Amino acid sequence: MAPLSEIDVVALRRELHAHPELGFTEFRSAARAASLLEALGWDVAAGAEVMVASERMGVPPDDVLAEALAAAREHGADERWLRALDGGMTAVAGTLAGRRPGPVVALRFDLDALPVAEAADPGHVPVREGFASRRPGLMHACGHDGHTAIGLALAARLAGRDFAGTVKLLFQPAEEGLRGARAVAASGIVDDVDELYCLHLGLGVPTGVVHGAVSGLLASTKLRASFRGRAAHAGVEPEAGANALLAAAQAVVALHALPQYAGPGARLNVGTLHAGTGLNIVPERAELAMETRAPDAATDARLGAAARAALTGAAGALGVEVEIEQVGGADAVRCDDGPAARVAAAAARVRGLTGRAEPHADSGSEDAGWLLERVRAHGGAGTYLVVGCTSPSGHHTPRFDLDERALPAAVDLLEAVVRDALR
Amino acid sequence: MAPLSEIDVVALRRELHAHPELGFTEFRSAARAASLLEALGWDVAAGAEVMVASERMGVPPDDVLAEALAAAREHGADERWLRALDGGMTAVAGTLAGRRPGPVVALRFDLDALPVAEAADPGHVPVREGFASRRPGLMHACGHDGHTAIGLALAARLAGRDFAGTVKLLFQPAEEGLRGARAVAASGIVDDVDELYCLHLGLGVPTGVVHGAVSGLLASTKLRASFRGRAAHAGVEPEAGANALLAAAQAVVALHALPQYAGPGARLNVGTLHAGTGLNIVPERAELAMETRAPDAATDARLGAAARAALTGAAGALGVEVEIEQVGGADAVRCDDGPAARVAAAAARVRGLTGRAEPHADSGSEDAGWLLERVRAHGGAGTYLVVGCTSPSGHHTPRFDLDERALPAAVDLLEAVVRDALR
Amino acid sequence: MAPLSEIDVVALRRELHAHPELGFTEFRSAARAASLLEALGWDVAAGAEVMVASERMGVPPDDVLAEALAAAREHGADERWLRALDGGMTAVAGTLAGRRPGPVVALRFDLDALPVAEAADPGHVPVREGFASRRPGLMHACGHDGHTAIGLALAARLAGRDFAGTVKLLFQPAEEGLRGARAVAASGIVDDVDELYCLHLGLGVPTGVVHGAVSGLLASTKLRASFRGRAAHAGVEPEAGANALLAAAQAVVALHALPQYAGPGARLNVGTLHAGTGLNIVPERAELAMETRAPDAATDARLGAAARAALTGAAGALGVEVEIEQVGGADAVRCDDGPAARVAAAAARVRGLTGRAEPHADSGSEDAGWLLERVRAHGGAGTYLVVGCTSPSGHHTPRFDLDERALPAAVDLLEAVVRDALR
Amino acid sequence: MAPLSEIDVVALRRELHAHPELGFTEFRSAARAASLLEALGWDVAAGAEVMVASERMGVPPDDVLAEALAAAREHGADERWLRALDGGMTAVAGTLAGRRPGPVVALRFDLDALPVAEAADPGHVPVREGFASRRPGLMHACGHDGHTAIGLALAARLAGRDFAGTVKLLFQPAEEGLRGARAVAASGIVDDVDELYCLHLGLGVPTGVVHGAVSGLLASTKLRASFRGRAAHAGVEPEAGANALLAAAQAVVALHALPQYAGPGARLNVGTLHAGTGLNIVPERAELAMETRAPDAATDARLGAAARAALTGAAGALGVEVEIEQVGGADAVRCDDGPAARVAAAAARVRGLTGRAEPHADSGSEDAGWLLERVRAHGGAGTYLVVGCTSPSGHHTPRFDLDERALPAAVDLLEAVVRDALR
Repeated sequence: MAPLSEIDVVALRRELHAHPELGFTEFRSAARAASLLEALGWDVAAGAEVMVASERMGVPPDDVLAEALAAAREHGADERWLRALDGGMTAVAGTLAGRRPGPVVALRFDLDALPVAEAADPGHVPVREGFASRRPGLMHACGHDGHTAIGLALAARLAGRDFAGTVKLLFQPAEEGLRGARAVAASGIVDDVDELYCLHLGLGVPTGVVHGAVSGLLASTKLRASFRGRAAHAGVEPEAGANALLAAAQAVVALHALPQYAGPGARLNVGTLHAGTGLNIVPERAELAMETRAPDAATDARLGAAARAALTGAAGALGVEVEIEQVGGADAVRCDDGPAARVAAAAARVRGLTGRAEPHADSGSEDAGWLLERVRAHGGAGTYLVVGCTSPSGHHTPRFDLDERALPAAVDLLEAVVRDALR
Repeated sequence: MAPLSEIDVVALRRELHAHPELGFTEFRSAARAASLLEALGWDVAAGAEVMVASERMGVPPDDVLAEALAAAREHGADERWLRALDGGMTAVAGTLAGRRPGPVVALRFDLDALPVAEAADPGHVPVREGFASRRPGLMHACGHDGHTAIGLALAARLAGRDFAGTVKLLFQPAEEGLRGARAVAASGIVDDVDELYCLHLGLGVPTGVVHGAVSGLLASTKLRASFRGRAAHAGVEPEAGANALLAAAQAVVALHALPQYAGPGARLNVGTLHAGTGLNIVPERAELAMETRAPDAATDARLGAAARAALTGAAGALGVEVEIEQVGGADAVRCDDGPAARVAAAAARVRGLTGRAEPHADSGSEDAGWLLERVRAHGGAGTYLVVGCTSPSGHHTPRFDLDERALPAAVDLLEAVVRDALR
Repeated sequence: MAPLSEIDVVALRRELHAHPELGFTEFRSAARAASLLEALGWDVAAGAEVMVASERMGVPPDDVLAEALAAAREHGADERWLRALDGGMTAVAGTLAGRRPGPVVALRFDLDALPVAEAADPGHVPVREGFASRRPGLMHACGHDGHTAIGLALAARLAGRDFAGTVKLLFQPAEEGLRGARAVAASGIVDDVDELYCLHLGLGVPTGVVHGAVSGLLASTKLRASFRGRAAHAGVEPEAGANALLAAAQAVVALHALPQYAGPGARLNVGTLHAGTGLNIVPERAELAMETRAPDAATDARLGAAARAALTGAAGALGVEVEIEQVGGADAVRCDDGPAARVAAAAARVRGLTGRAEPHADSGSEDAGWLLERVRAHGGAGTYLVVGCTSPSGHHTPRFDLDERALPAAVDLLEAVVRDALR
Repeated sequence: MAPLSEIDVVALRRELHAHPELGFTEFRSAARAASLLEALGWDVAAGAEVMVASERMGVPPDDVLAEALAAAREHGADERWLRALDGGMTAVAGTLAGRRPGPVVALRFDLDALPVAEAADPGHVPVREGFASRRPGLMHACGHDGHTAIGLALAARLAGRDFAGTVKLLFQPAEEGLRGARAVAASGIVDDVDELYCLHLGLGVPTGVVHGAVSGLLASTKLRASFRGRAAHAGVEPEAGANALLAAAQAVVALHALPQYAGPGARLNVGTLHAGTGLNIVPERAELAMETRAPDAATDARLGAAARAALTGAAGALGVEVEIEQVGGADAVRCDDGPAARVAAAAARVRGLTGRAEPHADSGSEDAGWLLERVRAHGGAGTYLVVGCTSPSGHHTPRFDLDERALPAAVDLLEAVVRDALR
């Protein structure tokens, strides 16, 4: 691929959209980012240089990783980078230092797609235009294809320019499930950052509107609990069994009583439960996946601790063992005034954009909080900005799509933000 | 009171019936037994001589004991014996040694009444005949008034006679709730006993029929669980509370799943639950009383242990503390063939009685098991015999009554049993 | 009693404090209010004239009402008014029409006390000063004694004055438990009211500060559920029973899962649960009392309906019957700007008071909402104002007390409000 | 295939063992039976002639049936019979009338295998001898391969012989899960039967021992419950959801309390539970499979009805819908003395066998009860006999195997039984 002074952000988004990859298996996507950054003259780091393996949460098992790597190869992943990304280490960072001294500005883009089967009818634009997912059952249904394309187009725009300070572009795996950011933060890659910008498209904000900050993104904890009891013939000698399904059901019931005792706004969901093998066997195993949410990390932590106690208590009473694994988690997202104002001001200068001072209210969760808190702990500041992008259907649904007019405008906006910060 | 060669068993039963006393507060009843035994020339032991305080279960609190003692005095308790019985030590034993050497035969009679309000209409014989309970809310609704009267009439019948061996008559407190026998057994009073006979009237067997043994009496454990959480205003800040009522309810639900995992025939009942003070207060306290039952002590113990785990697990998950106290318990009742056959044979010789070889099947519980197992552990044998006694209403109901024709026949029967054993 | 041009509000509060009465049994308190209003020349209405019996919630049973009426007589209730108040119809209203035409202004004061045992040590001012509760176990622990005294002192202050319009003073029973206001509203007594003022002392606001409005008072529903199953011997034949305690426990567990599915801010509390009679009896009866709360009436109603379904569902599955009775309830309290501003403005003119424009945030509940919504439905407006009153201990606690300096200031404030409204 | 005067029962069992098929998909097995019976000169009926489609329980969906039919073809199923068996109608009957008049004797053999993966190591005889399952994940792990082989060897033995009466051989699908016998019984095929013999190998009885009857086989009901709620984003608006997983968990907890209220010996097992799709989605669907068991059909029916109420109650309280389908069921198995004695007597005459008069005690379940009750309702009699067969591992386990010496002895036994009955 020839060096590029400009990247067609729409074309790149469409390419990424056609090759969606789940969290920690973004082999093709991350290799693509690394190749382009390298071609554009950025210093590139990848894998263990920019993330800590043990700080990841909810990493798929080895066979799933291997299968995904093979699929990435089939889909044309750049082989030169795959070794660095092996084993689910799919973060990439590009750094570009200006010739003049100045602050460090970082921008974070997430790479991963979702286990959603994309709509297949011609009314869905990616189908009509020929860039729908080529990975059955997987889909960029949250717009991260757009995020990555914007980040790489910004890399092309900034390449060869001079400024007072340093720019870092972070391409992060596994935002879905709140699994990847903690590992990137732990690498120290943002410890010298003065200003961090984390972007999201859409979130119900129409194309043309930009919010410099968000409010209401909840802290969250994701847990998986595996119960192991003892099988027995349910008719002949149930007393020889230890019923893992019953333990899980009692835990579910106990869990749902907890939110109001954790604090205002706390929430809990047991998303999946699978248990048992046969009608006449006392179930030996049960597995459930759950999450807590709360307006602040302390309340979420209190609810998470109570949830662990409920899981353990239910199991113990039935002679069942339970293992609890944290498979995801995020702090609440807090935004600093300075960076938020810088975004709003920059938006005002970009054609087609309107900047809003007030934060956009949302009640989802985001693992960007790990990066923002890390930056803040080292004296920096940051924000989570929303670039409006009208969609025909909600995030995470089969008919989700991006209004592609938002993409070049977002590149313009971020370029203005960086230039303002490093002028 | 003048020495007696014969006691009118019906008159004595009516006197006892009029003055019912609950378990460990049988001050008047036990003092009456002690006085009569003494007057009849038996060696009398009472209180700490024949029971171990710390082995009692479910002893009422001090103020209840004191109140009951005062009531006993009002009802004419023999003051000379009250000191020995103080503090709920209401067991009495009488011993009579024959001049010739021989085995030791013991007979056990229980003293306590029930918290049942006796029927008040003239259709109820004790009302019509003027011997209904004079203690409101208390009633001899299980026939222990008859048991005690039979024991004392037997004492009169045996007084002054000679035989080859020794007779012990045990008057035991707190059979209801399975609370007293363990303490009597622990005193060692039956360690030298060769044959132990424990009698019960009625149990659905009609007047005139005698079973020398029983089958099916279940092992049982009685528990009281006290939950203590933390009160809080339910509207303003439920998160400041720890909900004891909820913990108790979750425990109740968890408990009811346990029987089939303990073993065939296991049963569990939460008999009472009281929790909370006000509608808008997160409940700080809850108290429940429960029992387990099973065909054998091992299954009952397994269920009891699982129940404790369920209580603890439910409390722990909600930040609530729980104290669990065993307030009663019994082994399953096993009967030995020799004593059972002796009863059946003796019955055949008493006018108006028919002895049955096969055991009477019942599915209640009895703490006589403690005494029988203790005797057995020291090389003796014993049985639990049923003397039929038709009643107009079931045991433990307000209209329960004894067919008094059964009483003198029972005295005759036991006299024959003792004479046969010590001939 | 001689006509009064001025009432000593502190002395009257102390008298009322000494004679606390529970909701719907405020016989002495209401009669006192009626007598004083009459003596002061107000038109007085009481009982069925100002409340609808069938709209009351949680009315005590007849024997409790009769006992309370007897106690009121012992405590010197004015016999002339007791007939009107009989049967728990303890509302009183005084009306005073100015000679000039003008709007109708109403003020509401609540009469009832709480089942709290007042602190007995001399460190508690009512003890030291000799006006502590003379009704053991009952206490004015929420300040309604102060409210009533203020209302009556205001009656004296306005008596004989002229103004353009009409003043109504409403003395309402059974605010605690949210049981009385609906019945007063249903009488139509506020249908012609243009401005309604409902006052509360304290609520954490210090003496001297006045808020013209409140925010955050929650809608609430209070329910009592009575389960009736079938008793059976738990050891002999549990299958003959229908377990009311178990049904109640399952309902409690199911209920606690509901809040997060009703809507943001919804809450639920089962405050009391009482079930069962004996350890070895399958419990025939269980009774629980519970409440829901929510920021708006629609969410509260949704939660209330779900709660009824959970109660019914748990009972039905066990062959247990359940009766559910609503024993209290309130809409969320909304305050109108005009009356709120009038209070704040008036406070600014009373010596020792500071008026606050912003509402006082609270998260309790109040049945004043019934009256405010009724006024609003007929075209009027109203507010719920808080007159600061420092207390040594929280509302509803044994050491709660009023800072009596707040009382005359409150009378001044309300007089100013009325004069401003009817000038 | 050439006509056969004798079938090698061991070779045929091995062939059947290598081609296991699940209930209602025994296409190859049933076709094999039909072909052999036909070749031996028996009148053959199959499919709708000998079973009623609508009386089957737990029939697999159409795609599973189609797939299984294709597999049967791959495994060499006799094409001529597949049309009759299509759609899961896999019952076959052979009838042979003697020339002399006499009673009708029927013998029932079950055809189906289990979803068990057979042990693969050479220590397992079918592996060593080369007849292990050729259908991965399926295995004859209960010995029905032996039953079918015995039935067909018996057909060969009786072919061409004369006797006074008629013999019917019934090859029944889907005994596992108690799904097939009701449909066979409903066809009327046994309405004229005077004596019915249902055989099982093994059940813990060693090779050489024969019990003419069984006791303790439990009545059972198998249910599948499908909950459908409403999905919603668990973080953003849980109140828009109706939680099917929670409803299922509450049902599981409620279900486990029911057995002791149904009657002595009642049991319940929820064998599998699957619910939910994603961590952050309020689960829309849940599916559970459960069974009840009891010593008699009335207790089992009472427990089944209570279970349905618990499922419905839990769902209703959460706004979730539930569909409950019965997927299997059986009456308790009762054996008649006459046929049982005939078996024991016949066993005494077969070399290598010992006949036992007392029934073999077991606590599993069997759908043979449907056939036995149908025969009994029409004036006939029957028994369920056990032919001992030592196995290295329990029924339904991967290492289960038959001691093949039991097979020819069983053929001898049944031949003797038939001859005795029709002499």
